[in-house]
Amino acid sequence: MADLKVHGFWYSPFTFRVLWTLKLKGIAFEYFEEDRYNKSPQLLQYNPVHKKTPVLVHDGKPLCESMIIVEYIDELWPQNPLVPSDPYEKAVARFWVRYVDDMMSPVLPQFFGRFGSEEQDKVIKDIWERFEVIEDQYLGDHKKFLGGDTLNIVDITFGSFMKTLVGMQDALEVKILVAEKFPRLHAWFNNFMDVPVINNNPEHEKLVAAMKVFREKLSASSRE
Amino acid sequence: MADLKVHGFWYSPFTFRVLWTLKLKGIAFEYFEEDRYNKSPQLLQYNPVHKKTPVLVHDGKPLCESMIIVEYIDELWPQNPLVPSDPYEKAVARFWVRYVDDMMSPVLPQFFGRFGSEEQDKVIKDIWERFEVIEDQYLGDHKKFLGGDTLNIVDITFGSFMKTLVGMQDALEVKILVAEKFPRLHAWFNNFMDVPVINNNPEHEKLVAAMKVFREKLSASSRE
Repeated sequence: MADLKVHGFWYSPFTFRVLWTLKLKGIAFEYFEEDRYNKSPQLLQYNPVHKKTPVLVHDGKPLCESMIIVEYIDELWPQNPLVPSDPYEKAVARFWVRYVDDMMSPVLPQFFGRFGSEEQDKVIKDIWERFEVIEDQYLGDHKKFLGGDTLNIVDITFGSFMKTLVGMQDALEVKILVAEKFPRLHAWFNNFMDVPVINNNPEHEKLVAAMKVFREKLSASSRE
Repeated sequence: MADLKVHGFWYSPFTFRVLWTLKLKGIAFEYFEEDRYNKSPQLLQYNPVHKKTPVLVHDGKPLCESMIIVEYIDELWPQNPLVPSDPYEKAVARFWVRYVDDMMSPVLPQFFGRFGSEEQDKVIKDIWERFEVIEDQYLGDHKKFLGGDTLNIVDITFGSFMKTLVGMQDALEVKILVAEKFPRLHAWFNNFMDVPVINNNPEHEKLVAAMKVFREKLSASSRE
């Protein structure tokens, strides 16, 4: 049996991606929760360039960058494939993975950090502009998942941000994923969250509670 | 025979990557030079999300994002492979492709745009910090290329920026790739430029001349 270890933050969308992939494929692994303010010596040794989670350690060899790890797992454990096998479909899926990563990564911390400030409406508008691209360009043909009938790497990438964003919106009590405005995206998100591995890792209520604590700390430090 | 078209800017590092890959593999293609200020209707239709070059059109189907295109070509035309076949080596190469893209993309236009300004020294320092990571972390074992004995996707990615940067340094008459400071990187760059496809596409003198013209336009517009 393969020796697999994951170092991550349980509340991080980038960690979700790796844990979801391993669980969707039914692969056994050990999990190490890292402390954001006191990272383990192992993590710093495994990812000396970025010092970031998640890291996957396979038979002692470290791998970094969440979607590179997901593609690696998908190649070695091909059950429930997440990367399309057709080269053209694969390239299109990778295009959307990159789009989602580049466009969503910066807006999530902005939304969370600037909630309640003058910039709040601007950040929500930025997020909605990104939603519109997915709604119009990608979900045009009303598929169950972004990957079609089954999940693929685009669902994993976009879904990791959406699960986080919906956790934030419920913690902050503001509506971002408005069903009337983004009917296809809303339907996709419901389909996505109906997958038990996605829904349970982590539980929504646990994520919302943690975000309330983070938000309180952020507000306290900004009042200091 | 495959119907392959590339839309690009001849002086862009992202276009270099696609042209080098096709030429290294000896694949025939048609090339369309785009006008930065008046992009073709075809380009806007092929890449409606980013409206950017390069685009590869294979039998009528468009592909976007330079390194996704390179991996696509490498999968369909496996001669002179650029993506390592071993899954772990592939993941490590993709890590460095991502690192180089994320770290070098922003500093090149900064270097070119802020040359002669107060910020020039700061930008050069930023570039050197990135060079140090490659010099220490990646070129530690004195390989001929970043991929080992033959070129791989890391050479293509990093090399596209380095060819551009050395073009800029010669146009601006300032030294960036200092041999004494970065001996391994300097040796690698010489090996890289010794590959005829890399050296000739485009010719260094042509690139330097174009950069002088761009720089003159930039200076003129900033004086307006």
